[in-house]
Amino acid sequence: MVTVPEELGPGDILVRNSWSSIDPSVRMRLGPTGPAGYLPPFRIGETLTGLAIGEVVRSRAPGFAPGDTVLHINGFREFAVIRQDGDTLAGAGGVTRLDTGEHPPQAYLGALGSAGLTAYVGLHCIGELAGGDVVWISSAAGAVGSLAAQIAKLRGHYVVGSTGSTEKVRFLLEELNLDAAFDYHMPDLTRALDSAAPDGIDLYFDNVGGTHLGAALHRLRPGGRVAMAGAVASYDAETAAAGPDNLFQIVSKSLTVKGFRAGSYDHLLGDMRAEVGAYLRDGRLVAEETVFDGLESAPDAIVAMLRGRTVGKTLCRLR
Amino acid sequence: MVTVPEELGPGDILVRNSWSSIDPSVRMRLGPTGPAGYLPPFRIGETLTGLAIGEVVRSRAPGFAPGDTVLHINGFREFAVIRQDGDTLAGAGGVTRLDTGEHPPQAYLGALGSAGLTAYVGLHCIGELAGGDVVWISSAAGAVGSLAAQIAKLRGHYVVGSTGSTEKVRFLLEELNLDAAFDYHMPDLTRALDSAAPDGIDLYFDNVGGTHLGAALHRLRPGGRVAMAGAVASYDAETAAAGPDNLFQIVSKSLTVKGFRAGSYDHLLGDMRAEVGAYLRDGRLVAEETVFDGLESAPDAIVAMLRGRTVGKTLCRLR
Repeated sequence: MVTVPEELGPGDILVRNSWSSIDPSVRMRLGPTGPAGYLPPFRIGETLTGLAIGEVVRSRAPGFAPGDTVLHINGFREFAVIRQDGDTLAGAGGVTRLDTGEHPPQAYLGALGSAGLTAYVGLHCIGELAGGDVVWISSAAGAVGSLAAQIAKLRGHYVVGSTGSTEKVRFLLEELNLDAAFDYHMPDLTRALDSAAPDGIDLYFDNVGGTHLGAALHRLRPGGRVAMAGAVASYDAETAAAGPDNLFQIVSKSLTVKGFRAGSYDHLLGDMRAEVGAYLRDGRLVAEETVFDGLESAPDAIVAMLRGRTVGKTLCRLR
Repeated sequence: MVTVPEELGPGDILVRNSWSSIDPSVRMRLGPTGPAGYLPPFRIGETLTGLAIGEVVRSRAPGFAPGDTVLHINGFREFAVIRQDGDTLAGAGGVTRLDTGEHPPQAYLGALGSAGLTAYVGLHCIGELAGGDVVWISSAAGAVGSLAAQIAKLRGHYVVGSTGSTEKVRFLLEELNLDAAFDYHMPDLTRALDSAAPDGIDLYFDNVGGTHLGAALHRLRPGGRVAMAGAVASYDAETAAAGPDNLFQIVSKSLTVKGFRAGSYDHLLGDMRAEVGAYLRDGRLVAEETVFDGLESAPDAIVAMLRGRTVGKTLCRLR
């Protein structure tokens, strides 16, 4: 629980949050230790943090006025005090005022925010997407995957998506217009991928890890690439699963497997928003959302997302 | 068995081989199927091929005269007929005349050949070796590893080597002057690496695969790289071993894992020979060899190399 103080210090802002982003990464911070190099685990008793959109209620900070819509990391609470001394901004990119004239504010938590940047960077910088590439995207109905799949498709690529249910396979084929899609609960993931991409793939955009990576290594053509954005299969697991047994394919086919986190690519936010913003404006990109109402629904939202029961960007609406 | 023909056709060369290269890759070609994308398996009854050095005995090819020393892929035989029609050169880079004035001819199977190129490309192109990098090289007493370790050392890096015996650890420390070395048969490989590189590593040059890769992922610093040149641990195994369980480190630390085969970098042979040739001339680089005598010793040579009983480049001397 956060107590809203009576008084703001110089440079402080009081924000009333409207949207809190529900991200897979929150799960990794809910254990006693997090993965090395990753965001630190939350402490017991501490309010969770996470990307959020809110409206400035009171401001003693130059450049921020009541009514401004802002993006910040003090989510999972209805009111947030953002202090100039940065105490509550540790590790984030501070607070940003948004122009919400063109797009709904929550788009900046999804297609025009971290999810969009992850998709954009994964395809262009990490995956080095090039003409003619066949692309496989796992968790393709998820926040990042659905954007990566659509961007690759809009750039003219043959795109295969995998996801966790028949309904979501239909979503990939009918709403996102992917070339092929399959449910990863198939008895043989590699065979499913073989059928979807009979001539092989050049780029695998990995949101899942585990057996999916093994299938990709099997199916990648020489010189192929893996852009590893996440490993949602492992976040909620009790113990770490062994890696695929065919890593030698990385040598024999001269593959590149590259991990990344969008946070290191904030300088490309403008480029990403120019491309994705244009697609959204023209109605060529579907920015699907699964919305949970009220702060009390946040735990359910996290569980539903991790179990694959949400589509597109998972959000918690706070007012 | 190869029958030496009485007559050479136009463009053919008859070579008497002096050295046959013993490479780990030969093992992968001795099964019913090879790894996807790799060199095809040998067929039963077929003479093995492999890099070799020999002397031209008779020539009907322009540019080749009796007495010339040549590098070619028709090893594992005492006499080789190299035909213009390319039948016996399939998949190789043809036949090359060598200038043996400065270096012994077998150097072109080791430090100045494929092993040298693998070391050079792995460090510079794949591993993107940069100032201040701490480097770990596995199989560091082997043909490729011993060269990679020395090149990195000569370029001023802190270099850790791992190998499979106490004697070879001593070789790494005393002959190759590495900064730290350990025997990978330690009960805890990760802890051994921790002690050898307490502040972490930036580049892992992987000749082994398996648990070594897991230890590297654990120890790599953010932005670190893995240059995968081989996976000798798996070549002689009955079944494929599972990969390490910490592949998520690739995401959390933004790592790059890149496989390669030197054969794709023949255009850098000249650059490599300029650098490594100069080191050899100045006596700053040790080109260790383990030599087996006679074609009949080739099977023993392959087994000894795969079991880690050889140091440096393993060769079979044919005359």
